[in-house]
Amino acid sequence: MEIKLNDPILTENNTEAQKVREKLKKLNLFAINMMASPGAGKTSLIIALLKSLPKELKAGVIEGDVASSVDTDKIISLGWPAFQINTSGGCHLTASMINKAIDQLGISGPGILFIENIGNLICPTEFDLGENIRIVLSSVPEGDDKPVKYPGIYQKAHAIVLNKIDYMIHSDFDLASFIKGTKLTNETAPLFKVSSKTGEGIKELSNWIVSNML
Amino acid sequence: MEIKLNDPILTENNTEAQKVREKLKKLNLFAINMMASPGAGKTSLIIALLKSLPKELKAGVIEGDVASSVDTDKIISLGWPAFQINTSGGCHLTASMINKAIDQLGISGPGILFIENIGNLICPTEFDLGENIRIVLSSVPEGDDKPVKYPGIYQKAHAIVLNKIDYMIHSDFDLASFIKGTKLTNETAPLFKVSSKTGEGIKELSNWIVSNML
Repeated sequence: MEIKLNDPILTENNTEAQKVREKLKKLNLFAINMMASPGAGKTSLIIALLKSLPKELKAGVIEGDVASSVDTDKIISLGWPAFQINTSGGCHLTASMINKAIDQLGISGPGILFIENIGNLICPTEFDLGENIRIVLSSVPEGDDKPVKYPGIYQKAHAIVLNKIDYMIHSDFDLASFIKGTKLTNETAPLFKVSSKTGEGIKELSNWIVSNML
Repeated sequence: MEIKLNDPILTENNTEAQKVREKLKKLNLFAINMMASPGAGKTSLIIALLKSLPKELKAGVIEGDVASSVDTDKIISLGWPAFQINTSGGCHLTASMINKAIDQLGISGPGILFIENIGNLICPTEFDLGENIRIVLSSVPEGDDKPVKYPGIYQKAHAIVLNKIDYMIHSDFDLASFIKGTKLTNETAPLFKVSSKTGEGIKELSNWIVSNML
């Protein structure tokens, strides 16, 4: 199934995304749409960032999953507000889902709203959620060819994060080839190399996010 | 975007899948629909299986990707016939694509046709490609919660493969939890633990595939 530009579904979503943007502005929340493959480490990265943010900022998470509330339960157990969206087969979040979820989450800023999109490198690409920035996350064990294989989502990124760099020594991941692929698809997005497990690179990413809020 | 059962798109696909099934039977080819996340190691597993199959069997590969011909080039360079499908944004293969690709590939059996679906744990679920069996592949670095988070695709599997088990010692992957998740979604599919890198478990999976051809 392929979504074409100018599809009525996209037009409707864009209208709803504008409503989300206005709501976020009123609430003084800066929203990040986090997109990646299943298992790239989106939730672990969000948790690492929550711990790393300046204490004066509020933060909350909207979790998108086809099924289960595993990730939301984990974030709430750590003391942050989180709301779970289950799409029951839907392969991406929509602005309409986010609009309702923000009301359910009930937080206000100044602060950051993390939106963890469905684990998928294709469907979320064209769906504006009203976010301020989009981060595309890849992980070392997935291999270095993801930007070349899934160019659409990389083109849309404001930042590219390479996660699980602690696996680098156990892997034949070619960093130069990965960087070449990201530059081919997106010349401007900065690349952050991080490990949510060891904490490497998290502070740099957190600082970059905060600098984008100004 | 969600596909509902009885959707006209699915009905049309099912009709086309029946044509694929008849074509495969005439060609004496046993087709395997290989489904997984991006970077779970579908191509590496297919290559490991190609090397492990009995020499009297013919084999070929249809590669599905959003973009690029990286995987097809790799397989052809190793001496096996392969044909690339690029979906340009489409998030799963369809029976119609496979029907045309079989003609392009131009192989006949007795043998095996590997179909590498688009890297995606959602969209390929409801699309019958006319295959004989469906294998769902997960990899250790993705984490142990994939069956619980993407139950639909696991329910459809004839076999579940856990790949990259050589990463197990570097990871907090909980094998018991993964097995529990697979059993919750699919009681009957056998589980094969493999490493395409070290070769562990490949022969057992290869033998199981061949036993299913009879």
